[in-house]
Amino acid sequence: MLINFCAQCSARVTLKIPPGDQLPRHVCDSCGAIHYQNPKIVAGCLIEWEDKIVLCKRAIDPRLGYWTLPAGFMEIGESVEHAAAREAFEEAEARVEIGAMLSMISVPHIGQVHIFFHAKLMGGSIGVGAESLEVGFYRETEIPWRELAFPTVKQTLQRYYADLHAGVQRAHVFDIAPPRSE
Amino acid sequence: MLINFCAQCSARVTLKIPPGDQLPRHVCDSCGAIHYQNPKIVAGCLIEWEDKIVLCKRAIDPRLGYWTLPAGFMEIGESVEHAAAREAFEEAEARVEIGAMLSMISVPHIGQVHIFFHAKLMGGSIGVGAESLEVGFYRETEIPWRELAFPTVKQTLQRYYADLHAGVQRAHVFDIAPPRSE
Repeated sequence: MLINFCAQCSARVTLKIPPGDQLPRHVCDSCGAIHYQNPKIVAGCLIEWEDKIVLCKRAIDPRLGYWTLPAGFMEIGESVEHAAAREAFEEAEARVEIGAMLSMISVPHIGQVHIFFHAKLMGGSIGVGAESLEVGFYRETEIPWRELAFPTVKQTLQRYYADLHAGVQRAHVFDIAPPRSE
Repeated sequence: MLINFCAQCSARVTLKIPPGDQLPRHVCDSCGAIHYQNPKIVAGCLIEWEDKIVLCKRAIDPRLGYWTLPAGFMEIGESVEHAAAREAFEEAEARVEIGAMLSMISVPHIGQVHIFFHAKLMGGSIGVGAESLEVGFYRETEIPWRELAFPTVKQTLQRYYADLHAGVQRAHVFDIAPPRSE
């Protein structure tokens, strides 16, 4: 999203370092409002059901047709856990109980932090939400590793299964660099 | 920050639910741009040095004159850990090694998520950063509990010391409701 004009008064903005600040910001030439841009949180969950987990095939861009864990942008007014549970319902029609944090992955080059939780499916029923083409239960051997939508989803799944086999449960906090080809 | 005008084209915006969305957004009447607002991340750290921790007296609003752990808004292009280390340097002139996540606290009513890490002070030197009036090392018995700047700082400190006495180290993920008087 380009910032050309002040959202408060509609005057032109200029990119400059405000007094006392360290970084250039979009500052209004007229009213002086500073328009900060900050990283966004994507909240999601890994829904466990018996020896399977829930994956969704994306019906929307980016990465339409690829598989993901239910996840999406956190909204103002909700907690991270609530956002993860909401996304589980919107994308997989899954009612879940959110458990421990599984991963918190900074993706600095796109200004996002992806946070995934363990989650238990309540009642055992899932469905195809509006943003999904397909939703299903997958065993570890059935995960479509080459058709996963995002690196954060792949890394979260890899660490989840590594911990599961090791008999431990940990919170994984790390970051992901841009792909080398970019 | 009020959103009255489109930052992209300067036309008026209207608050309405875009097609396929669930929540009202500021949508441009002219170019159709949707101006989302999302929660912001505040990253900070609890810096350990011998049997003490580092606290900063705030030189800026909000809560000028009250004590805090070094923390501030995460910027685009950095990881959460990097943001926490940067704030430690800016506010307490502390060079730190960021450790495990200590707390992740959603504050839904102000659209923020506060994330604190354990941190080790490298070299033992601290100083008074531009946003601080005073910076010092504090033992548990010396913490100014009634003069702490933010509930997330108080809760993080309380849980840190409870874990310390119990001989455990855990990541605390929870949320904070608005004060009852509001």
